[in-house]
Amino acid sequence: MPKVSAAHRDERRRQILDGARTAFAEHGYEGATVARLEQAIGLSRGAIFNYFPDKWELFYALAVEDQQRAGMLWLEHGFDGLVRHLGDENPEWIGVYLEVSRMLRTIPELRERWAERNVDLDVKLAAHLTKLQADGVYRSDLDIETLGHFLGVVLDGLIVQRGAGFPVDIEGTLELVRSALAPK
Amino acid sequence: MPKVSAAHRDERRRQILDGARTAFAEHGYEGATVARLEQAIGLSRGAIFNYFPDKWELFYALAVEDQQRAGMLWLEHGFDGLVRHLGDENPEWIGVYLEVSRMLRTIPELRERWAERNVDLDVKLAAHLTKLQADGVYRSDLDIETLGHFLGVVLDGLIVQRGAGFPVDIEGTLELVRSALAPK
Repeated sequence: MPKVSAAHRDERRRQILDGARTAFAEHGYEGATVARLEQAIGLSRGAIFNYFPDKWELFYALAVEDQQRAGMLWLEHGFDGLVRHLGDENPEWIGVYLEVSRMLRTIPELRERWAERNVDLDVKLAAHLTKLQADGVYRSDLDIETLGHFLGVVLDGLIVQRGAGFPVDIEGTLELVRSALAPK
Repeated sequence: MPKVSAAHRDERRRQILDGARTAFAEHGYEGATVARLEQAIGLSRGAIFNYFPDKWELFYALAVEDQQRAGMLWLEHGFDGLVRHLGDENPEWIGVYLEVSRMLRTIPELRERWAERNVDLDVKLAAHLTKLQADGVYRSDLDIETLGHFLGVVLDGLIVQRGAGFPVDIEGTLELVRSALAPK
């Protein structure tokens, strides 16, 4: 293998991830065959799997990126900002998450690694929620885990409805979430 | 075709639906081939498709049953009773719903029919929510559609987390939902 610069490697990695995202969105996880990944990415399977050992690792890398982006939106623009952004998300791509949830359920190792895909971000989000609670924005009669879990449930509910093509009432949902979390 | 009694037809229909539910839960929607459906049901494809024209109609009939059962739980035991029941639901079977959400998104006719699979029940649930609002149990500054949509989002969020095998905090979620819906 010829030596390649770090910049070249980063660029290739980006090309592979962008193409894979397109292929997954268009064909679904199972439907994104190696031939379709090659076509969407514009590289041979040898080149692709030189960067990512298998299809799951490709999807996992995209999920890590998504979660980092979502986490940044949450930290910078609040839960409301994150939810409003969901309205712009591609339903086709959301569908891939729904598709892989079966794999997460049936393969415990995947599920464990999935839950830990951004440990640093989890720590930051917990600190964010703790601060909102300490500042009296969020209620303090329930613990942070319960509040965080609830917000995750609402997010997943919005995602699954959007992923199935149903209209989503973003602002109504946000109003109700604010009431749920407000100090008693 | 020999004449069969209505009771016999009902029994056969029940046998087909029960077997199909087992096959879908075990193999997923796509994975439940006609051969696997035949095996789980214990009848030939000819007999099965005499009662249901295709695989989607089999799944649709099961989804109608599920929704009727969920609607009855909701009406009789409240939203809390319905959500507590979710904890007993088979995650394998939940996974089939996540799998078909792709079909709902990509096939508009399916999505429309899906949304209208129990119109009578929708009317009853709307009346139930309207009564809770009139009785001052639910807030009246938001309309019934917004409240109902929010409860649907929370349900779907719990379902997707359970379908992916993650632990679900039923009681914490219900406490937050009660606060969300309480009069201001």
